[in-house]
Amino acid sequence: MTKVNPDLQRERQKCTFDVEEMTVLYDGGEEKTAQRRSRASVMVSNVNYYNGVPEYYLGSKEKHEESIRKSVIIFGLVRKMQQEGRTKVTDFRHVLQCLLGSAVTYDGTSMVLHYLMVMPAIISQGTEEQQAYWLPRAWNGTFIGSFAQTELGHGTFIRGLETTATYDPGTQEFVLHSPTLTSTKWWAGGLGNTANYAIVVAQLYTKGKCHGVHAFIVQIRDEETHHPLPGIKVGDVGGKLGLEAVNNGFLVLDHVRIPRNHMLMKHAQVLEDGTYVKSSDSKLIYATMLFMRVVIVFDMVNYLSKAVTIATRYSAVRRQTPVRQDGPELQVLDYLTQQNKLLITISTCYCIKIISEIHWDTYDEINEEVANGKLDRLPELHALVCCLKAIVTSDTAHCVERCRLACGGYGYMLSSFLPSLYGQVTAACIYEGENTVMLLQTARFLLKTWQRIDSHTLPPTVAYLKMASTEGFTKWEKSATGIIRGLQVVAMRKISACAAAMEKRVSSGMSIEDAWNLSSVQLVAAAEAHGRVVLATYFYEGATRVIAKASSSAGVVLRQLLELYLVYWALQSLVDLLKYTNISGRDAEELQAWYEELLVQLRPNAVGLVDAFDIRDEMLHSTLGSYDGRVYERLMEEALKCPLNKEADYSAFHKYLKPYMQGKL
Amino acid sequence: MTKVNPDLQRERQKCTFDVEEMTVLYDGGEEKTAQRRSRASVMVSNVNYYNGVPEYYLGSKEKHEESIRKSVIIFGLVRKMQQEGRTKVTDFRHVLQCLLGSAVTYDGTSMVLHYLMVMPAIISQGTEEQQAYWLPRAWNGTFIGSFAQTELGHGTFIRGLETTATYDPGTQEFVLHSPTLTSTKWWAGGLGNTANYAIVVAQLYTKGKCHGVHAFIVQIRDEETHHPLPGIKVGDVGGKLGLEAVNNGFLVLDHVRIPRNHMLMKHAQVLEDGTYVKSSDSKLIYATMLFMRVVIVFDMVNYLSKAVTIATRYSAVRRQTPVRQDGPELQVLDYLTQQNKLLITISTCYCIKIISEIHWDTYDEINEEVANGKLDRLPELHALVCCLKAIVTSDTAHCVERCRLACGGYGYMLSSFLPSLYGQVTAACIYEGENTVMLLQTARFLLKTWQRIDSHTLPPTVAYLKMASTEGFTKWEKSATGIIRGLQVVAMRKISACAAAMEKRVSSGMSIEDAWNLSSVQLVAAAEAHGRVVLATYFYEGATRVIAKASSSAGVVLRQLLELYLVYWALQSLVDLLKYTNISGRDAEELQAWYEELLVQLRPNAVGLVDAFDIRDEMLHSTLGSYDGRVYERLMEEALKCPLNKEADYSAFHKYLKPYMQGKL
Repeated sequence: MTKVNPDLQRERQKCTFDVEEMTVLYDGGEEKTAQRRSRASVMVSNVNYYNGVPEYYLGSKEKHEESIRKSVIIFGLVRKMQQEGRTKVTDFRHVLQCLLGSAVTYDGTSMVLHYLMVMPAIISQGTEEQQAYWLPRAWNGTFIGSFAQTELGHGTFIRGLETTATYDPGTQEFVLHSPTLTSTKWWAGGLGNTANYAIVVAQLYTKGKCHGVHAFIVQIRDEETHHPLPGIKVGDVGGKLGLEAVNNGFLVLDHVRIPRNHMLMKHAQVLEDGTYVKSSDSKLIYATMLFMRVVIVFDMVNYLSKAVTIATRYSAVRRQTPVRQDGPELQVLDYLTQQNKLLITISTCYCIKIISEIHWDTYDEINEEVANGKLDRLPELHALVCCLKAIVTSDTAHCVERCRLACGGYGYMLSSFLPSLYGQVTAACIYEGENTVMLLQTARFLLKTWQRIDSHTLPPTVAYLKMASTEGFTKWEKSATGIIRGLQVVAMRKISACAAAMEKRVSSGMSIEDAWNLSSVQLVAAAEAHGRVVLATYFYEGATRVIAKASSSAGVVLRQLLELYLVYWALQSLVDLLKYTNISGRDAEELQAWYEELLVQLRPNAVGLVDAFDIRDEMLHSTLGSYDGRVYERLMEEALKCPLNKEADYSAFHKYLKPYMQGKL
Repeated sequence: MTKVNPDLQRERQKCTFDVEEMTVLYDGGEEKTAQRRSRASVMVSNVNYYNGVPEYYLGSKEKHEESIRKSVIIFGLVRKMQQEGRTKVTDFRHVLQCLLGSAVTYDGTSMVLHYLMVMPAIISQGTEEQQAYWLPRAWNGTFIGSFAQTELGHGTFIRGLETTATYDPGTQEFVLHSPTLTSTKWWAGGLGNTANYAIVVAQLYTKGKCHGVHAFIVQIRDEETHHPLPGIKVGDVGGKLGLEAVNNGFLVLDHVRIPRNHMLMKHAQVLEDGTYVKSSDSKLIYATMLFMRVVIVFDMVNYLSKAVTIATRYSAVRRQTPVRQDGPELQVLDYLTQQNKLLITISTCYCIKIISEIHWDTYDEINEEVANGKLDRLPELHALVCCLKAIVTSDTAHCVERCRLACGGYGYMLSSFLPSLYGQVTAACIYEGENTVMLLQTARFLLKTWQRIDSHTLPPTVAYLKMASTEGFTKWEKSATGIIRGLQVVAMRKISACAAAMEKRVSSGMSIEDAWNLSSVQLVAAAEAHGRVVLATYFYEGATRVIAKASSSAGVVLRQLLELYLVYWALQSLVDLLKYTNISGRDAEELQAWYEELLVQLRPNAVGLVDAFDIRDEMLHSTLGSYDGRVYERLMEEALKCPLNKEADYSAFHKYLKPYMQGKL
């Protein structure tokens, strides 16, 4: 057995709770822990993923081939699971999550959209007949699909998409066409060189009339040769900051014909003669479209828990600078400034883990109502999904980057895995809805809610607005619930201030649209304040339930994590608390002291808390973060794998350097 | 001539000032503009740098060769400049800066340390004889040097370095040795496969006694064959987030012997018999070591001005979502939320440009005093250099990343150049002194200053502390000087609060070291507050001088930029202003309104202001940011350069995908 770094060993001895218990609490029960471990072990131990040279040294073509080689292994396992009957959405969610995915493919996979967008689209938008035809083929991987919606010129504004699908009743076909450069489909994952089919979102024209965007299944490559079919120009969009293996593609269609029944027709049909029939509420599609944004929130903690595991273990191993002349050098983790960077991230992991389960359940519940025709909570769901997506992804990106910087220079090395993690999470701030746009959508709902606050019963997630506005704010209270109440008042007051600002602008003669734009910085802030209330409330409620099940030693620490999170966000919201509640300067100082006390209390359990995430070394993929703490050894071993070091290749020297040194160049 | 995007054209027509005048004001005079343009044109137009395939698609070996090919071209030009007699430090500073460097080599160069650290070290630490020997060779590039100080186990804490240099009087040689794994030299730029000499920093042992760290010139590779010399293990440290071309290396020395006169002996000598003689104050070295940190501040604006040029032009070209049903889609730049992201960054560019000139002059002045034996302003200089390095690099990284995110998905594409810019600036938050450590060093000086505030005349950059503490704060004033005064009071009060907290902890029996650590979050914040005062003051003073020279149309806009910057930072400091000054809630709201007014005022000049940075397309290196605004065309052209698209290569399909789809894998 490998020797564990003695500093890490000591950290583990110091831990005041049972790590296995914490793992089970974190996972949500023994069964879930067992399932997760079994999945991980199937994924990791059955196959040899590593091919000798770390992928980041390869050229783009070799990288692509490597990623396809691995994707096929992973999705072979997924197919096996399906054949064994484990085909619930949650099963796939777990398998496909980055916790496994990114560990094995390092930087995403080009086949994930097939499962996460193509199949859900067929299920939600295809007729029963279409589902019966396409779904078994999709499960089997008989074809690999991509989902092509965004275009060069349009992402956020779907109505502005330019690709056309024109029905030709003569041949009973749709003619798919890209009329302009900006109508080029762009970004679709796997579309570059992997997928041979794509769901293409296009403006439907029939009988000379446009009926808005609809989805069409388009074969793009020959199944035998993989050559693009006639009229199709397809390829990779080119180098990206991260997620290189995702193989995002572009697609240009030149009058490409597809059979009529390749339009997904659950909610609208084009009949043989070209008659357009709308058969159900388009809002039904809408609820399904929110699915990805909920999955993203769920997914973030997998990246974040990796980042903070790496940074925390490294900070326990790394020693730098004695505090006393000639004393021993301190573990970096002993510096309060380092605790300040890492402990809030650990507590954010516990928060996101807990809130994303609640968020998932809320989504499930409302989605089921919607499927049964009860649509009244749909606007609430939409507002909730938008702001949690925005806040959780941006908090995660911020925290991952803080972890990376907390590892000093080594966080800059790819072998730490931290740059790759950042590349993956920062992408989530943009895809499936850019975060500023997301927050503005939530703000729109909040303002509408505010306007009807006196006359309506408010939906659960905004019910606090009424309470906060009618009861007013009496007294600042230094407690978890006191902070939540303070945050509620802040959100309420920020929303009401937005409403007032809008009203003032409109009554001075400005158009609603211009007033909205001029208020938008404020509106974004109000939506964020609302999101903070939801996060704080969900975390408080969820953690309280977990603590009730925990031993006292684990419960104490979970409580500290909860409090750290709440106090941290209270401090971040201090300007607003000072403005909108009766918190005093002294109260604020007490909050800061409370925060620092919590850092000191949590410090001895830092390593235990990240150990409890129970992330296997093979998935952590990091020279800095492995369980045994062999940081320096691994850094050296990884450096030696660099192709520049493997063989003595002096061609650059002889070609350029030497002539230069000799004055010949 | 290429057609300019009509939206960009319109932006330029709207501009209220003369762009050429603004460029000259920004550069600091017509002569400087002319020089900069002539350097740029030499660098860019004489050589064909581009080799067909964008570098980021290459494997590590090809990338290395490409970067050496280009470096040799650049440094050939540098050598030519030197031969023409232009060898002042400022000349080289300009040439080597990223403005040129990163444009041509894309991601740094492995030879820059030779000029920026090796040559300055020889000048500042070598005897006249040593300089006479080594400098001409260094200028000519007869050898290429690297500077090897940091080790695997030690970066910040230089006294902890483990590499030894033991003098052997028998052969009159030093024996350089790496006694442990953690003593492996790590990070040195160009050390990997480029340099054939290195300045190695090691613990000097002679006559059985250690005399601390000194610098030694060590030949590491054969000049003819480039093979590492006996006893030397050297190579590249491996993949990094960015700056890949810098070829950072590791170095392990196994009893490597060098002649006695390869120790740099200006300030300390080892005589032939091994006697150690210290001849001058070690603080003299210290002032020179600050050089790099000053250069870094100077350098940041070159990255930042590129990032914001790219993001601003893109935001003028990009249209998304009509505000009115069926109205035209808005330029993204018209959204207040986008202005909120970009305009502060434009004003930060003008700020950094102006303050870094003042900073450079201050450094020059004090450095000259030090060289003449007058050391009393050295601690002030050190504190100043540390906090400006930390704040300017972290602000720059933050702003570059905000620009990247403001470009939505396209900011994630390498062809935007934004990921590369972020990779370069985030590195500066760590190298040459990690930012948190830097701020703590400033805090140490501030606390010492505070303790002597009554009895001493304070040095210029902290003189405001006395004024702010004795005069107190009477009345908040909504003006540029009012804000600066408010920030001064904040810094003063934060420093005094730190002093009080330290005193309280120490008087309760805590050691000074523990008290320091427990106060360190607060200390970092105090040092940052001080840095904000310096930045605001320098910018105010510098901008006022520039405005005095400007036409009224340019002056008005410069004044808006100055005010935007000050108001922004007042709003960021609002908690402290509320806590420490008598600013009221209404004042705070007025500040916010002022900020938003400034956004609206500056909006029409956004493109003009980035045009005034006058960055050539070849240096901007971006699909999104070029002068003509052909954004979508360039995105498509760049995508087609991806090797995955160039030839029809279906090997990954036939090897893996097809067998998988057919159920054989």
